[in-house]
Amino acid sequence: MNELLDSLNLIYPLSPELQQFLALKIEHVILPKKAFLLKQGKVCKNLCFISKGLARCFYIKDDKEVSSWFMKEGDMIVSVESYFKQQPSHENIQALEECELLCIKYEDLQFIFKSFPEFNFVGRVLTEKYYTLSEQRLFSLRMQRANERYRFLMSNYPELIRRVPSTYIASYLGITLETLSRIKHY
Amino acid sequence: MNELLDSLNLIYPLSPELQQFLALKIEHVILPKKAFLLKQGKVCKNLCFISKGLARCFYIKDDKEVSSWFMKEGDMIVSVESYFKQQPSHENIQALEECELLCIKYEDLQFIFKSFPEFNFVGRVLTEKYYTLSEQRLFSLRMQRANERYRFLMSNYPELIRRVPSTYIASYLGITLETLSRIKHY
Repeated sequence: MNELLDSLNLIYPLSPELQQFLALKIEHVILPKKAFLLKQGKVCKNLCFISKGLARCFYIKDDKEVSSWFMKEGDMIVSVESYFKQQPSHENIQALEECELLCIKYEDLQFIFKSFPEFNFVGRVLTEKYYTLSEQRLFSLRMQRANERYRFLMSNYPELIRRVPSTYIASYLGITLETLSRIKHY
Repeated sequence: MNELLDSLNLIYPLSPELQQFLALKIEHVILPKKAFLLKQGKVCKNLCFISKGLARCFYIKDDKEVSSWFMKEGDMIVSVESYFKQQPSHENIQALEECELLCIKYEDLQFIFKSFPEFNFVGRVLTEKYYTLSEQRLFSLRMQRANERYRFLMSNYPELIRRVPSTYIASYLGITLETLSRIKHY
């Protein structure tokens, strides 16, 4: 919890009252390996910070799982459209390693944005950060070939390449395991 | 300008001082048809609100233009990664019709976020909105076939289908003009 508060305080100093309120509303959750934080069709009610562990987002396309992204320590986990609009999600979120999460409910976060105006500075900066990262990946998806997308991952997210099983990396890149293996050794 | 201030005031009431400051810093720009607001390799220095007109974003891939999105009256125009990180852009932004824009420089917006804390509420809500729309389009790109993506456009952005030349719609969908014509008449 202190690690999270420290990183929020670096963005904008939080009042003691807000820090107390956050401590009251943030829930510690242990998500066992392979457990789901969110299933397709359900509303994403929590925004979570990963203090330990690794998770993936995936869709089902033609009865096959398609990995869309991976999150590790220090990252936020959320199904953006589902959380911000409080509507059923298109995607699933599953733990790839046991995860320790710090989660806040949608209603509590909205209350904080209204009651503690300074937290909007933090919310804006974090939303800009994740929006920018999402746009980078969108650019990579639209413009790059699989081998370029693999190099993009290697440069920007080397730890994911080490920790995420190759089958999910291949799925994210839209290629077979054999092609991924060729790209890796190229 | 009043239209823009009204819509911002609906998100969160702005103080008279902030409204005066915005009026001072927001620049009216007329962008003639076919003119560029941003060229690939340049830093996106302005975030603009379109009060009239239509524009497109596009990349160059294998020496061909690939349309990535379209913006009309009431929309914000910005190259997200370039603006938020103040680094060279991967994309181009060009007027498809003459555009009347209200633009604010990156430095002025950062000053406002620091000096008028209430504007972070507005900034957060708008960033969440455009982030969500971007994720919807990413989902459509990853998961849908061209005909489904066309139906998605028809349902969610019917005015774009009417106003954007078909050649750019086909480019956005990643199909030829002939295929687009078949999908339209299906």
